[in-house]
Amino acid sequence: MQLIRGGITSVPGFLASGIHAGIKKDGRLDLALIYSEQECALSAVMTRNRFKAAPLLLDIQHLKTPKGHAVIINSGNANACTGRQGYQDALEMARLTAMALGIARRRVCVASTGVIGQPLPMDRIRRAIPLAVKALNRRGGLRAAQAIMTTDTFPKTLCLETRLLGRRVRIAGMAKGAGMIHPRMATLLAFVVTDAKISAGLLRLALRKATDRSFNMITVDGDTSTNDMVLCLANGRAMNEPIRRHSQAFDQFTHCLTILCTDLAKLIARDGEGATKLIEINVLRAQDPQQAKGIAFAVAQSSLVKTAFFGEDPNWGRIMAAIGASADGSRIRQDRIDIYYGEIRVTHNGTGCGKGAEARARAYLKRDEVCLTIKLKNGKEAARIWTADLSPEYARINASYRA
Amino acid sequence: MQLIRGGITSVPGFLASGIHAGIKKDGRLDLALIYSEQECALSAVMTRNRFKAAPLLLDIQHLKTPKGHAVIINSGNANACTGRQGYQDALEMARLTAMALGIARRRVCVASTGVIGQPLPMDRIRRAIPLAVKALNRRGGLRAAQAIMTTDTFPKTLCLETRLLGRRVRIAGMAKGAGMIHPRMATLLAFVVTDAKISAGLLRLALRKATDRSFNMITVDGDTSTNDMVLCLANGRAMNEPIRRHSQAFDQFTHCLTILCTDLAKLIARDGEGATKLIEINVLRAQDPQQAKGIAFAVAQSSLVKTAFFGEDPNWGRIMAAIGASADGSRIRQDRIDIYYGEIRVTHNGTGCGKGAEARARAYLKRDEVCLTIKLKNGKEAARIWTADLSPEYARINASYRA
Repeated sequence: MQLIRGGITSVPGFLASGIHAGIKKDGRLDLALIYSEQECALSAVMTRNRFKAAPLLLDIQHLKTPKGHAVIINSGNANACTGRQGYQDALEMARLTAMALGIARRRVCVASTGVIGQPLPMDRIRRAIPLAVKALNRRGGLRAAQAIMTTDTFPKTLCLETRLLGRRVRIAGMAKGAGMIHPRMATLLAFVVTDAKISAGLLRLALRKATDRSFNMITVDGDTSTNDMVLCLANGRAMNEPIRRHSQAFDQFTHCLTILCTDLAKLIARDGEGATKLIEINVLRAQDPQQAKGIAFAVAQSSLVKTAFFGEDPNWGRIMAAIGASADGSRIRQDRIDIYYGEIRVTHNGTGCGKGAEARARAYLKRDEVCLTIKLKNGKEAARIWTADLSPEYARINASYRA
Repeated sequence: MQLIRGGITSVPGFLASGIHAGIKKDGRLDLALIYSEQECALSAVMTRNRFKAAPLLLDIQHLKTPKGHAVIINSGNANACTGRQGYQDALEMARLTAMALGIARRRVCVASTGVIGQPLPMDRIRRAIPLAVKALNRRGGLRAAQAIMTTDTFPKTLCLETRLLGRRVRIAGMAKGAGMIHPRMATLLAFVVTDAKISAGLLRLALRKATDRSFNMITVDGDTSTNDMVLCLANGRAMNEPIRRHSQAFDQFTHCLTILCTDLAKLIARDGEGATKLIEINVLRAQDPQQAKGIAFAVAQSSLVKTAFFGEDPNWGRIMAAIGASADGSRIRQDRIDIYYGEIRVTHNGTGCGKGAEARARAYLKRDEVCLTIKLKNGKEAARIWTADLSPEYARINASYRA
C-alpha cells in the first residue's frame, strides 16, 4: 500500500469539477460535482443529529437503492432548518444534475455545508449546475476539494494505492471540516471513491468500520452538525474477483479504507478552526473500550485542556480534573493515573513529577503535533483520538462567521 | 425582603479578613478567613468531580459533625492532585487556624482555589494564618471576597435582609467563579452566612434546594472542577423561634437563600472568563423538567452558540443544531420549535422568520444582558439557566493561566 499524489480523480473512471456558483459572496469555489462514468455501489454514514438537513433527508431516500452515479455538493449554505422548501431545493439540485448528466435522479446524491437556516439561492444554483457538468474532467479532484471548503484553510484530499486480489486498486477521498467536528459525523463532509469491485453491502460494512476508527475519533469543538456525512462510491473498474465477507481481501480493503479515512480525519483535526496544533490523545490500560474512549473525549472536549495546549502549558491538573468530571471516570482511582506529554511523564500515580519534568514537557509542547498519553492502570483496553487546541482565533472565526 | 449594601460581615456575629500571604506572585490578596463569634450550624454542597481536592476531603470529615466556627480559604493554589502531602497541608491549615483562634480544629473548614497539582507553599501559609486572624474585623467582608478571587475581574458579594418569625434576619454571601463553572458545583466557591436560627438538618435541605436552582443552573465552559463547594454557616443570633420543616418560615428562608444564591450565580456567569454578556436561556413547553434542563445546557455549552453571542449574531441555526445534537432532543420535533432573542421571534415552527426579524435580533444582541427563549411545544415544563458568551479572551486567559 502506498500514498500517491492526487485526489479523487486519481481513481480511474471518476471525473470531478469545482466552480463558483455565487453562493459564497467572495468569489471562492462553492459547487462541486463528482461523476462516475459507470454506476457505482454506494454507501453512506450520516450525522446522528436529530435535525438532519434537507439534502440528507433526500439522500436517505436515494440510498434505499444503494447505487450511485454522481454527487453534487454546495458550500456556503447548509440547506438545514429550511423546511419543505429546503427539501424541494435539494430535490431540484439532484434533478438538474441528473438531467444535465443524462442519468436517473435517484442516482444523484446531494450534500450541502455552510450557514444553517437560510434558503439556498436556487436561481444561481440552477444556472451553475450545467456549468459544473461541463467543467467535469479527469484532473478536477483538487478543485472539487476546494469547492466544498467552508472555514477550512486548506483542501483535504488523499489517494492510496494497493494490490487487492491481484489487481491494482485505488481509494481516494476528499473532506471538509474545521469547526463543529465531533464523533458521530459532525460538521464534516467526506467523499471517498474507489475502483475496487465490492458489493454495496460489504462497502457499507467496511465504511462503517473505517468511520468508527477515524471520523468518529476526532473532535474540534464538541458540536455535532445537522449536515454531515461520509459517502463512498465504488465503480468496480479494477475488475478484481469478488470480495467475500470473511476473507483476507475484505480485511485488507477495510484496512486501506480505515487508513485513508484516518488520515483525512487527522487533516480535519489539524485544520480545526483557529487550531495551531494537532493533538493525539491515547488512553491506555482502561477497564473497557468505552471507558477509554469516554475519557479520551472528555479530555479532548475540555475547553480548559484545549486552551492549555494552545498556551503550550503542560497543565496536567486540568487533564486530571477533566477525567474526574467525566462519567467514565467513575471507576478510576486518581492515585494510579500517569500522564505523559510525548515520552515525558509529568504525573505519576496521581501527583506531579516536579518542575524538571514540566519544563521538559513545556519544551515538547512547542511542536505542531503533540501526543498526550493517559495511563489509567485499570485494565487492558485503549483508545486513540485526535483533536485540536482552542485559540482566541476560534472564537474570532465563529463570532463573525455569517458577517 | 431587601438587598442591602455590604458583604458577609453585614451579618451580626461574623468577622472576616483578607490578606496577602504570598501564594499569588503579584501581591494580590490570597488568604481569606471567616470567623463566627459563636459556633454555627454548618452545611455544604460539594463538587461531584470524582477527584476531590484535599481540603474537600478534610471538610467531608469535619462535616460529620455539622458545626462550624471558621473557614480558611486560599486562592492561587487549589491543593488538588497533591496526594497525601496535600491532605496533610489542608489539615495543618485547619489546625493552625484553630490554634490562633482558640477553637477546635474540627470546627474549621478549609477551601482552596487556583492551579491544580502544585504543593501549597506551606511556609508562607504558616506565617500568614496568625496575621489573617489578627486582621479579622467587622468590615472585612469585601477584603475576604477579594482574597478568594482567581481569574475573577470583580469581587462577588451580596446581602439580603428579611423578617422571619418576627425577627430581622440577614443572609449574606461571597463567591468566586469565572472559568470552569458548570452545574454540579464546578470551579466556584461560595460562602453564605446568616444570623437565622436554624437546625443543621434544615439548613442542609434549604442549601441543597437553593443550590439546585442557582449555582447548578450556570455554566461557563462546561468544565467541572476538583475543588468547589458552597458552604453555609448559621449562627442563630437573630434568636427567632425554631424554624420547622413544613412551615411558611422554612419556605421563606429557602426562598431568600435561593434568591441570594441565584444573584451570586448570575454574577459568576457574568464574570465568565473573557465574557462580554450574561445570557439567560429559557426553555419552555418541554415534555419534562429534565428535557428542558438538558436542552438548555446543550445550547449553553455549544461553543458555536457561545461564539455567535459574542459576535452579536442571531445565528439561530446553531441553536437548532445544538438542540438536535443533544440527548434530550430525541423526542422533539424540529418543525414545532420557536426561537426568540428577547421578544423577537426569529424562528417559527423550525424555519427562519426572515431578514427583518434577524436584523431586529441583531440590534437586540448588542445589549450586555440578553435572553434566549426556546419554545419546544412539546409539553408544559420549563428551565432557566445562565451562561456567558465565548470570546477570544477566554482562550487567551486560559492559555496563559499558569504563566
